[in-house]
Amino acid sequence: MDKSQILDGKASVVTLLSDFGDRDVYVAVMKGVIAQINPQLRVIDLNHQITPQNLAAARFCLMDAYPYFPEGTVHIAVVDPGVGSKRRAIAVEFAQGFLVGPDNGIFSGILSQQQAIAAVELTNRNYWRSTEISHTFHGRDIFAPVGANLASGVPIQELGREIDPASLVQLEITECQQRGNVITGCIQYIDHFGNLVSNIPGSYVQGKTWRVQVGSLTIPGCETYSDVKVREAIALVGSHGWVEIAINSGNAQSQLQINWQDSLEVIRLG
Amino acid sequence: MDKSQILDGKASVVTLLSDFGDRDVYVAVMKGVIAQINPQLRVIDLNHQITPQNLAAARFCLMDAYPYFPEGTVHIAVVDPGVGSKRRAIAVEFAQGFLVGPDNGIFSGILSQQQAIAAVELTNRNYWRSTEISHTFHGRDIFAPVGANLASGVPIQELGREIDPASLVQLEITECQQRGNVITGCIQYIDHFGNLVSNIPGSYVQGKTWRVQVGSLTIPGCETYSDVKVREAIALVGSHGWVEIAINSGNAQSQLQINWQDSLEVIRLG
Amino acid sequence: MDKSQILDGKASVVTLLSDFGDRDVYVAVMKGVIAQINPQLRVIDLNHQITPQNLAAARFCLMDAYPYFPEGTVHIAVVDPGVGSKRRAIAVEFAQGFLVGPDNGIFSGILSQQQAIAAVELTNRNYWRSTEISHTFHGRDIFAPVGANLASGVPIQELGREIDPASLVQLEITECQQRGNVITGCIQYIDHFGNLVSNIPGSYVQGKTWRVQVGSLTIPGCETYSDVKVREAIALVGSHGWVEIAINSGNAQSQLQINWQDSLEVIRLG
Repeated sequence: MDKSQILDGKASVVTLLSDFGDRDVYVAVMKGVIAQINPQLRVIDLNHQITPQNLAAARFCLMDAYPYFPEGTVHIAVVDPGVGSKRRAIAVEFAQGFLVGPDNGIFSGILSQQQAIAAVELTNRNYWRSTEISHTFHGRDIFAPVGANLASGVPIQELGREIDPASLVQLEITECQQRGNVITGCIQYIDHFGNLVSNIPGSYVQGKTWRVQVGSLTIPGCETYSDVKVREAIALVGSHGWVEIAINSGNAQSQLQINWQDSLEVIRLG
Repeated sequence: MDKSQILDGKASVVTLLSDFGDRDVYVAVMKGVIAQINPQLRVIDLNHQITPQNLAAARFCLMDAYPYFPEGTVHIAVVDPGVGSKRRAIAVEFAQGFLVGPDNGIFSGILSQQQAIAAVELTNRNYWRSTEISHTFHGRDIFAPVGANLASGVPIQELGREIDPASLVQLEITECQQRGNVITGCIQYIDHFGNLVSNIPGSYVQGKTWRVQVGSLTIPGCETYSDVKVREAIALVGSHGWVEIAINSGNAQSQLQINWQDSLEVIRLG
Repeated sequence: MDKSQILDGKASVVTLLSDFGDRDVYVAVMKGVIAQINPQLRVIDLNHQITPQNLAAARFCLMDAYPYFPEGTVHIAVVDPGVGSKRRAIAVEFAQGFLVGPDNGIFSGILSQQQAIAAVELTNRNYWRSTEISHTFHGRDIFAPVGANLASGVPIQELGREIDPASLVQLEITECQQRGNVITGCIQYIDHFGNLVSNIPGSYVQGKTWRVQVGSLTIPGCETYSDVKVREAIALVGSHGWVEIAINSGNAQSQLQINWQDSLEVIRLG
């Protein structure tokens, strides 16, 4: 079967996320393996600068980017501290696309928002790069070739043994909690601008007057950066859809000394 | 209308420039939005490591890269400190391609070298990602979808209200000045090798004997790095077409302690 | 001749490797030049974060990635301290693909493993970007346009004067040496995780009991990271196929204070 024919003129998209950085050829090798299987696939890098083995960041980035990709997109994610151990290799199907990677919780953000249609453990070695694989680079040997085949039209059931989506590993993430007009949450992501993304959905503050409390610090809820002066702190519903703390033209993480997992309160005033 | 049909087999190119870095999924999300509109478009990253909100660097990179892309290329640029404020969102048409981004001066380098054919303010929300948009990520919500449509064949006049190209915001950049055989200019860009790119066009020194004076430092005008010994300073017409200061196998910025905007003189000897 | 027709529906792959980093538009300009010649080509970045002028790292990355790309792939490599001097610009043909770049030893890793079919010096200026070229950016002016033409079907003999592959510059790399059950080698590459890749092929230890000696440090030979406790050192055959030293969930380079070119011994016990 000539896989480049399956697509029938329609470009299929594959995304890659990893903690491989950009100083080595690991990512390029995965792209080479994909091109060997089907050079027509469009490969888009989600992010390869995940801090080594930071599953929470990988989980957030996947959940954040997922809605913006075309139907049928295959997202391959390789943040994989357990590579070579007994952790499962999996593929999951959703209405809008597929996930391929290790079963270690990196997909649990998307799983909390979307209904899985099917899940398989990647046991069919015919879709691996070769039946003898490395113990340390399943991105190259399993996930890239399986993802390329999936994006080329191979049905997910072909790839291995069906498993119950409810059995997939969940990352333990603190949920935000509401008591009256106070919602308590934590910082679930910090971007490279130093913007602090909480786990409190923007819907809690839509149309309200509100402020954020972090320790002794009070930050006004506003609409956009320029609502406060340059170098001043602001809380707003960020482009990710969550309540976010930023500094107008500055870095909130370093200026406010707030970090991953730190807790915050949203207080609704009316 | 199936946008992937418009191109009729010819790949259209879209480039992206931003200060989004490579540690988040902002760039990937823009590429996802573009692929949702037309997965056939070729997307090329110009540079996402612009220092946050460094409009002068963004202006230089766009001006520098523009001539090397195919006719019809759409350049989307998102260095946008004024996002969410009243700054205009624009598209500009030139003989060789299109620019899409905020009207804050990042395009003023290209505008100083090329004749604009048309310019529009992006007021037609039918070409935005949705009519309700974020206050902080117009790259995703306006510029990426508008750019993808433009690259797919939508006429620029469809995208909004026509405006006078002469009304576009200009960055205030010092021009170089000639007095007899002395040309005074400044450093307009420093690359990651530490090479110092001035704003003095190479044409001033073509075929001449010349040297550069920076403070008390005198640097000979030569042709290529290997014209001086390893670790020695050299002035030459760089690949960008401007007079440039470099160190053979070294970093001129750190070794010579010269920085952005520092002034220099080119002295022609004959 | 319309180059986009040559391919006849089959996507050809071009890879790029350089020390240009990601803070400038040098890489983007090469991609623009390639798209001007043939926008149908798929361009994959191998690695642009080679330490400036580190030919040994470039040599390793090319050798490492080469086997994972489709037949006919053109690998363009620009780590080029001698640009503008008399070093030759070359293209080399192998059974599985082509190499294009300066003749300074960066290709000597692949040349040590694969048989060259043909080699040419790039003397035919019809395939350069223009007959007048810069002294400092042959990536843009020679290698990108030549590589794009090669990937579009231009025969290698068209590109210049045939030369003897045996005349190509070799990097002087220490070879590993075997004396009985002791194999002495050195660290030939360090990845961004801090994993230390030696120049001792994994075949020496396959199916054996073995350990590694570095100075006074003894490290057990195992199969995968999780064979030792977190933060403990391990020796294994890495995904590159060489004996490698790593720390389970840690950085071996910084923790063990071992560096590029440091020597090590593999001791086979049975």
